[in-house]
Amino acid sequence: MEEMRERKIVVAVDESEESMYALSWCLSNLQVHDPKTTLVLLYVKPPPPAYSSLDTAGFLFPDDLLATMEKYSKKLVDSVMHKAEAIYRDFGVDVCIYLSLSLSLHIFEIKFHTDTQVKVEKKVGSGNAKDVICGTVNKLGADILVMGTHGYGFFKRALLGSVSDYCSKHVKCPVLVVKRPKNN
Amino acid sequence: MEEMRERKIVVAVDESEESMYALSWCLSNLQVHDPKTTLVLLYVKPPPPAYSSLDTAGFLFPDDLLATMEKYSKKLVDSVMHKAEAIYRDFGVDVCIYLSLSLSLHIFEIKFHTDTQVKVEKKVGSGNAKDVICGTVNKLGADILVMGTHGYGFFKRALLGSVSDYCSKHVKCPVLVVKRPKNN
Repeated sequence: MEEMRERKIVVAVDESEESMYALSWCLSNLQVHDPKTTLVLLYVKPPPPAYSSLDTAGFLFPDDLLATMEKYSKKLVDSVMHKAEAIYRDFGVDVCIYLSLSLSLHIFEIKFHTDTQVKVEKKVGSGNAKDVICGTVNKLGADILVMGTHGYGFFKRALLGSVSDYCSKHVKCPVLVVKRPKNN
Repeated sequence: MEEMRERKIVVAVDESEESMYALSWCLSNLQVHDPKTTLVLLYVKPPPPAYSSLDTAGFLFPDDLLATMEKYSKKLVDSVMHKAEAIYRDFGVDVCIYLSLSLSLHIFEIKFHTDTQVKVEKKVGSGNAKDVICGTVNKLGADILVMGTHGYGFFKRALLGSVSDYCSKHVKCPVLVVKRPKNN
Protein backbone atom coordinates (compact mmCIF):
# COMPACT_ATOMS: atom_id res chain seq x y z
CA MET A 1 0.00 0.00 0.00
CA GLU A 2 1.39 3.37 -0.96
CA GLU A 3 2.57 5.63 1.82
CA MET A 4 0.18 8.38 2.78
CA ARG A 5 1.40 11.76 1.60
CA GLU A 6 0.27 15.27 2.50
CA ARG A 7 -3.31 15.77 1.32
CA LYS A 8 -5.55 18.80 1.00
CA ILE A 9 -9.30 18.40 0.97
CA VAL A 10 -11.06 21.62 -0.02
CA VAL A 11 -14.71 21.95 0.98
CA ALA A 12 -16.53 24.87 -0.62
CA VAL A 13 -18.97 26.15 1.97
CA ASP A 14 -21.70 28.76 1.66
CA GLU A 15 -24.92 29.76 3.42
CA SER A 16 -26.82 26.73 2.16
CA GLU A 17 -27.75 23.62 4.08
CA GLU A 18 -26.53 21.68 1.06
CA SER A 19 -22.93 22.79 1.57
CA MET A 20 -23.12 21.94 5.29
CA TYR A 21 -24.40 18.50 4.36
CA ALA A 22 -21.44 18.15 2.00
CA LEU A 23 -19.06 19.01 4.85
CA SER A 24 -20.76 16.54 7.12
CA TRP A 25 -20.60 13.83 4.42
CA CYS A 26 -16.94 14.58 3.96
CA LEU A 27 -16.26 14.16 7.71
CA SER A 28 -17.94 10.77 7.76
CA ASN A 29 -16.64 9.36 4.50
CA LEU A 30 -13.25 10.78 3.62
CA GLN A 31 -10.12 10.04 5.57
CA VAL A 32 -9.94 13.44 7.24
CA HIS A 33 -8.71 12.33 10.65
CA ASP A 34 -5.24 11.70 9.39
CA PRO A 35 -2.23 13.74 10.53
CA LYS A 36 -1.16 14.34 6.94
CA THR A 37 -4.52 15.69 5.84
CA THR A 38 -5.57 19.33 5.86
CA LEU A 39 -9.23 20.21 5.54
CA VAL A 40 -9.59 23.58 3.83
CA LEU A 41 -12.94 25.32 4.25
CA LEU A 42 -13.37 27.78 1.44
CA TYR A 43 -16.06 30.43 1.52
CA VAL A 44 -16.47 32.88 -1.32
CA LYS A 45 -18.34 36.02 -0.43
CA PRO A 46 -19.87 38.23 -3.09
CA PRO A 47 -17.47 40.85 -4.46
CA PRO A 48 -17.55 44.30 -2.82
CA PRO A 49 -19.41 46.96 -4.83
CA ALA A 50 -17.06 48.00 -7.61
CA TYR A 51 -18.40 51.53 -7.92
CA SER A 52 -16.72 54.60 -6.53
CA SER A 53 -18.50 56.78 -4.01
CA LEU A 54 -20.24 58.43 -6.97
CA ASP A 55 -22.44 56.03 -8.94
CA THR A 56 -23.27 56.32 -12.63
CA ALA A 57 -26.50 58.19 -11.97
CA GLY A 58 -24.61 60.81 -10.00
CA PHE A 59 -25.90 59.73 -6.59
CA LEU A 60 -23.55 59.62 -3.69
CA PHE A 61 -23.24 56.33 -1.80
CA PRO A 62 -23.07 57.36 1.82
CA ASP A 63 -20.12 55.94 3.74
CA ASP A 64 -22.40 54.40 6.31
CA LEU A 65 -24.17 52.39 3.60
CA LEU A 66 -20.85 50.99 2.41
CA ALA A 67 -19.83 50.32 6.01
CA THR A 68 -23.13 48.51 6.63
CA MET A 69 -22.61 46.37 3.54
CA GLU A 70 -19.12 45.48 4.70
CA LYS A 71 -20.44 44.62 8.14
CA TYR A 72 -23.16 42.46 6.61
CA SER A 73 -20.56 40.67 4.50
CA LYS A 74 -18.46 39.96 7.62
CA LYS A 75 -21.53 38.66 9.44
CA LEU A 76 -22.22 36.32 6.52
CA VAL A 77 -18.71 34.89 6.73
CA ASP A 78 -18.99 34.42 10.50
CA SER A 79 -22.38 32.80 10.14
CA VAL A 80 -21.14 30.29 7.56
CA MET A 81 -18.05 29.42 9.57
CA HIS A 82 -20.10 29.03 12.78
CA LYS A 83 -22.43 26.67 10.96
CA ALA A 84 -19.39 24.67 9.88
CA GLU A 85 -18.13 24.48 13.47
CA ALA A 86 -21.52 23.17 14.57
CA ILE A 87 -21.05 20.36 12.05
CA TYR A 88 -17.70 19.43 13.64
CA ARG A 89 -19.30 19.27 17.06
CA ASP A 90 -21.90 16.86 15.75
CA PHE A 91 -19.00 14.67 14.70
CA GLY A 92 -17.43 14.80 18.15
CA VAL A 93 -14.77 17.28 17.19
CA ASP A 94 -13.30 19.70 19.73
CA VAL A 95 -11.83 22.98 18.63
CA CYS A 96 -8.39 23.27 20.21
CA ILE A 97 -6.80 26.42 18.88
CA TYR A 98 -8.53 29.19 16.99
CA LEU A 99 -6.40 31.81 15.34
CA SER A 100 -8.27 34.44 13.38
CA LEU A 101 -6.18 36.54 11.04
CA SER A 102 -7.49 39.78 9.67
CA LEU A 103 -7.34 39.17 5.93
CA SER A 104 -8.67 36.05 4.37
CA LEU A 105 -7.06 33.21 6.27
CA HIS A 106 -8.17 31.58 9.48
CA ILE A 107 -6.36 28.56 10.87
CA PHE A 108 -7.35 26.38 13.74
CA GLU A 109 -6.88 22.85 14.81
CA ILE A 110 -9.60 20.49 15.81
CA LYS A 111 -9.27 17.29 17.74
CA PHE A 112 -11.34 14.15 17.36
CA HIS A 113 -12.31 12.31 20.52
CA THR A 114 -10.09 9.54 19.26
CA ASP A 115 -7.10 11.87 19.80
CA THR A 116 -6.49 12.12 16.09
CA GLN A 117 -5.89 15.69 15.11
CA VAL A 118 -7.23 17.26 11.98
CA LYS A 119 -5.70 20.41 10.59
CA VAL A 120 -8.35 22.79 9.36
CA GLU A 121 -7.73 25.98 7.42
CA LYS A 122 -10.49 28.47 6.79
CA LYS A 123 -10.14 30.56 3.68
CA VAL A 124 -12.42 33.39 2.71
CA GLY A 125 -12.28 34.65 -0.84
CA SER A 126 -14.19 37.39 -2.56
CA GLY A 127 -15.47 37.56 -6.13
CA ASN A 128 -17.12 35.25 -8.59
CA ALA A 129 -17.56 31.91 -6.78
CA LYS A 130 -16.67 29.80 -9.83
CA ASP A 131 -13.40 31.56 -10.51
CA VAL A 132 -12.32 31.90 -6.90
CA ILE A 133 -13.02 28.23 -6.12
CA CYS A 134 -11.19 26.96 -9.21
CA GLY A 135 -8.31 29.37 -8.71
CA THR A 136 -7.86 28.47 -5.04
CA VAL A 137 -8.14 24.72 -5.61
CA ASN A 138 -5.59 24.75 -8.42
CA LYS A 139 -3.23 27.10 -6.57
CA LEU A 140 -3.32 24.93 -3.45
CA GLY A 141 -2.74 21.80 -5.52
CA ALA A 142 -5.70 20.30 -3.67
CA ASP A 143 -6.35 16.56 -3.78
CA ILE A 144 -10.12 16.86 -3.89
CA LEU A 145 -12.78 19.55 -4.06
CA VAL A 146 -16.01 18.82 -2.19
CA MET A 147 -19.13 20.82 -3.01
CA GLY A 148 -22.81 20.66 -2.24
CA THR A 149 -25.59 20.99 -4.76
CA HIS A 150 -28.47 23.36 -4.39
CA GLY A 151 -31.98 22.06 -4.50
CA TYR A 152 -33.08 25.07 -6.50
CA GLY A 153 -35.84 25.11 -9.06
CA PHE A 154 -35.12 25.15 -12.76
CA PHE A 155 -34.39 28.87 -13.20
CA LYS A 156 -32.18 29.28 -10.16
CA ARG A 157 -30.31 26.07 -10.99
CA ALA A 158 -29.67 27.37 -14.48
CA LEU A 159 -27.82 30.29 -12.90
CA LEU A 160 -26.42 28.90 -9.68
CA GLY A 161 -26.22 25.13 -10.08
CA SER A 162 -23.68 25.64 -12.77
CA VAL A 163 -21.00 26.43 -10.15
CA SER A 164 -20.37 22.72 -9.56
CA ASP A 165 -20.56 21.92 -13.29
CA TYR A 166 -18.06 24.67 -14.03
CA CYS A 167 -15.70 23.59 -11.27
CA SER A 168 -15.81 19.93 -12.37
CA LYS A 169 -14.46 21.06 -15.71
CA HIS A 170 -11.92 23.62 -14.57
CA VAL A 171 -10.16 22.24 -11.53
CA LYS A 172 -7.30 19.82 -11.92
CA CYS A 173 -8.27 17.49 -9.09
CA PRO A 174 -11.21 15.13 -8.46
CA VAL A 175 -14.50 16.85 -7.67
CA LEU A 176 -17.06 15.40 -5.30
CA VAL A 177 -20.56 16.81 -5.64
CA VAL A 178 -22.63 15.87 -2.63
CA LYS A 179 -26.37 15.86 -3.09
CA ARG A 180 -28.40 16.30 0.07
CA PRO A 181 -31.01 13.54 0.42
CA LYS A 182 -34.56 14.87 0.18
CA ASN A 183 -35.58 13.49 3.56
CA ASN A 184 -32.81 15.32 5.49
CA MET B 1 -18.72 9.83 16.08
CA GLU B 2 -21.61 8.13 14.34
CA GLU B 3 -21.45 4.37 14.05
CA MET B 4 -20.36 3.12 10.65
CA ARG B 5 -23.24 1.62 8.73
CA GLU B 6 -23.27 -0.56 5.62
CA ARG B 7 -21.92 1.45 2.70
CA LYS B 8 -21.87 0.89 -1.03
CA ILE B 9 -19.28 2.61 -3.20
CA VAL B 10 -20.03 2.22 -6.89
CA VAL B 11 -17.13 2.75 -9.29
CA ALA B 12 -18.14 3.01 -12.95
CA VAL B 13 -15.37 1.36 -14.93
CA ASP B 14 -14.81 1.20 -18.67
CA GLU B 15 -11.97 0.63 -21.13
CA SER B 16 -10.36 3.97 -20.41
CA GLU B 17 -7.26 4.68 -18.34
CA GLU B 18 -9.28 7.48 -16.76
CA SER B 19 -11.72 5.07 -15.15
CA MET B 20 -8.86 2.91 -13.86
CA TYR B 21 -7.27 6.01 -12.38
CA ALA B 22 -10.61 6.76 -10.69
CA LEU B 23 -10.63 3.26 -9.19
CA SER B 24 -7.09 3.66 -7.99
CA TRP B 25 -7.89 7.08 -6.48
CA CYS B 26 -10.86 5.55 -4.74
CA LEU B 27 -8.72 2.78 -3.22
CA SER B 28 -6.25 5.29 -1.81
CA ASN B 29 -8.66 7.96 -0.63
CA LEU B 30 -12.00 6.47 0.35
CA GLN B 31 -12.49 4.23 3.33
CA VAL B 32 -12.87 1.04 1.30
CA HIS B 33 -10.98 -1.31 3.62
CA ASP B 34 -13.82 -1.39 6.07
CA PRO B 35 -15.82 -4.55 6.80
CA LYS B 36 -19.09 -2.71 6.29
CA THR B 37 -18.16 -1.32 2.89
CA THR B 38 -18.89 -2.95 -0.44
CA LEU B 39 -17.07 -1.77 -3.52
CA VAL B 40 -19.25 -2.27 -6.58
CA LEU B 41 -17.49 -2.23 -9.94
CA LEU B 42 -20.00 -1.38 -12.60
CA TYR B 43 -19.22 -1.85 -16.26
CA VAL B 44 -21.77 -0.98 -18.92
CA LYS B 45 -21.18 -2.63 -22.26
CA PRO B 46 -22.77 -1.31 -25.40
CA PRO B 47 -26.25 -2.69 -26.05
CA PRO B 48 -26.47 -5.78 -28.28
CA PRO B 49 -27.58 -5.05 -31.85
CA ALA B 50 -31.31 -4.45 -31.68
CA TYR B 51 -32.01 -5.61 -35.20
CA SER B 52 -33.37 -8.99 -36.11
CA SER B 53 -31.42 -11.33 -38.35
CA LEU B 54 -32.77 -9.30 -41.29
CA ASP B 55 -31.60 -5.67 -41.29
CA THR B 56 -33.51 -2.74 -42.78
CA ALA B 57 -31.72 -2.99 -46.10
CA GLY B 58 -32.79 -6.62 -46.42
CA PHE B 59 -29.36 -8.11 -45.78
CA LEU B 60 -29.06 -11.12 -43.61
CA PHE B 61 -26.76 -10.89 -40.57
CA PRO B 62 -24.98 -14.20 -40.47
CA ASP B 63 -25.12 -16.01 -37.15
CA ASP B 64 -21.35 -16.16 -36.97
CA LEU B 65 -21.14 -12.35 -37.16
CA LEU B 66 -23.55 -12.03 -34.24
CA ALA B 67 -21.61 -14.69 -32.34
CA THR B 68 -18.35 -12.84 -33.03
CA MET B 69 -19.85 -9.61 -31.75
CA GLU B 70 -21.05 -11.33 -28.61
CA LYS B 71 -17.61 -12.87 -28.12
CA TYR B 72 -15.98 -9.45 -28.60
CA SER B 73 -18.34 -7.95 -26.05
CA LYS B 74 -17.43 -10.67 -23.52
CA LYS B 75 -13.73 -10.07 -24.17
CA LEU B 76 -14.25 -6.37 -23.52
CA VAL B 77 -15.87 -7.11 -20.16
CA ASP B 78 -13.04 -9.48 -19.22
CA SER B 79 -10.43 -6.98 -20.29
CA VAL B 80 -11.94 -4.20 -18.18
CA MET B 81 -12.32 -6.41 -15.13
CA HIS B 82 -8.75 -7.71 -15.51
CA LYS B 83 -7.48 -4.15 -15.68
CA ALA B 84 -9.39 -3.43 -12.47
CA GLU B 85 -7.80 -6.46 -10.78
CA ALA B 86 -4.37 -5.18 -11.77
CA ILE B 87 -5.20 -1.97 -9.93
CA TYR B 88 -6.00 -3.94 -6.76
CA ARG B 89 -2.69 -5.73 -6.97
CA ASP B 90 -0.90 -2.38 -7.16
CA PHE B 91 -2.60 -1.54 -3.89
CA GLY B 92 -1.44 -4.75 -2.24
CA VAL B 93 -4.76 -6.47 -2.52
CA ASP B 94 -5.01 -10.26 -2.80
CA VAL B 95 -7.99 -11.86 -4.46
CA CYS B 96 -9.27 -14.54 -2.11
CA ILE B 97 -12.44 -15.92 -3.60
CA TYR B 98 -13.66 -15.41 -7.13
CA LEU B 99 -17.15 -16.48 -8.02
CA SER B 100 -18.24 -15.77 -11.53
CA LEU B 101 -21.92 -16.06 -12.21
CA SER B 102 -23.22 -16.38 -15.70
CA LEU B 103 -25.48 -13.37 -16.03
CA SER B 104 -24.37 -9.95 -14.95
CA LEU B 105 -23.13 -10.39 -11.42
CA HIS B 106 -19.68 -11.40 -10.25
CA ILE B 107 -18.80 -11.44 -6.60
CA PHE B 108 -15.44 -11.93 -5.04
CA GLU B 109 -13.66 -10.95 -1.92
CA ILE B 110 -10.30 -9.30 -1.75
CA LYS B 111 -8.02 -9.02 1.22
CA PHE B 112 -5.71 -6.17 2.10
CA HIS B 113 -2.32 -7.00 3.51
CA THR B 114 -3.57 -5.41 6.70
CA ASP B 115 -6.04 -8.32 7.05
CA THR B 116 -8.96 -6.02 6.47
CA GLN B 117 -11.33 -7.56 4.00
CA VAL B 118 -13.06 -5.62 1.31
CA LYS B 119 -16.17 -6.97 -0.32
CA VAL B 120 -16.17 -6.35 -4.05
CA GLU B 121 -19.08 -6.95 -6.37
CA LYS B 122 -18.67 -6.80 -10.11
CA LYS B 123 -21.74 -5.83 -12.07
CA VAL B 124 -21.99 -5.80 -15.83
CA GLY B 125 -24.87 -3.96 -17.41
CA SER B 126 -25.83 -3.47 -21.01
CA GLY B 127 -27.37 -0.46 -22.71
CA ASN B 128 -27.00 3.29 -22.59
CA ALA B 129 -24.22 3.99 -20.05
CA LYS B 130 -25.95 7.05 -18.56
CA ASP B 131 -29.22 5.27 -17.88
CA VAL B 132 -27.70 2.01 -16.68
CA ILE B 133 -25.31 3.77 -14.28
CA CYS B 134 -28.00 6.02 -12.81
CA GLY B 135 -30.51 3.17 -12.61
CA THR B 136 -28.07 0.81 -10.89
CA VAL B 137 -26.79 3.42 -8.44
CA ASN B 138 -30.28 4.46 -7.41
CA LYS B 139 -31.53 0.86 -7.21
CA LEU B 140 -28.61 -0.17 -5.01
CA GLY B 141 -29.10 2.86 -2.78
CA ALA B 142 -25.37 3.51 -3.22
CA ASP B 143 -23.56 5.94 -0.93
CA ILE B 144 -21.31 7.33 -3.62
CA LEU B 145 -20.73 7.00 -7.35
CA VAL B 146 -17.12 7.31 -8.51
CA MET B 147 -16.41 8.03 -12.17
CA GLY B 148 -13.44 9.01 -14.28
CA THR B 149 -13.41 11.75 -16.87
CA HIS B 150 -12.19 11.32 -20.38
CA GLY B 151 -9.51 13.53 -21.72
CA TYR B 152 -11.26 13.77 -25.05
CA GLY B 153 -11.14 16.72 -27.39
CA PHE B 154 -14.04 19.10 -27.73
CA PHE B 155 -16.27 17.07 -30.04
CA LYS B 156 -15.86 13.74 -28.29
CA ARG B 157 -16.35 15.41 -24.92
CA ALA B 158 -19.54 16.98 -26.16
CA LEU B 159 -20.88 13.47 -26.77
CA LEU B 160 -19.14 11.32 -24.17
CA GLY B 161 -18.07 13.64 -21.37
CA SER B 162 -21.69 14.29 -20.67
CA VAL B 163 -22.04 10.88 -18.97
CA SER B 164 -20.60 12.26 -15.74
CA ASP B 165 -22.59 15.51 -16.04
CA TYR B 166 -25.78 13.53 -16.60
CA CYS B 167 -25.09 11.17 -13.70
CA SER B 168 -24.30 14.06 -11.33
CA LYS B 169 -27.78 15.36 -11.96
CA HIS B 170 -29.71 12.09 -11.98
CA VAL B 171 -28.36 9.93 -9.19
CA LYS B 172 -29.52 10.43 -5.63
CA CYS B 173 -26.12 10.05 -3.96
CA PRO B 174 -22.87 12.07 -4.02
CA VAL B 175 -20.90 11.82 -7.24
CA LEU B 176 -17.12 11.91 -7.35
CA VAL B 177 -15.63 12.75 -10.72
CA VAL B 178 -11.95 11.88 -10.75
CA LYS B 179 -9.81 13.70 -13.28
CA ARG B 180 -6.61 11.95 -14.26
CA PRO B 181 -3.60 14.26 -13.87
CA LYS B 182 -1.96 15.11 -17.18
CA ASN B 183 1.44 13.83 -16.11
CA ASN B 184 0.17 10.31 -15.27
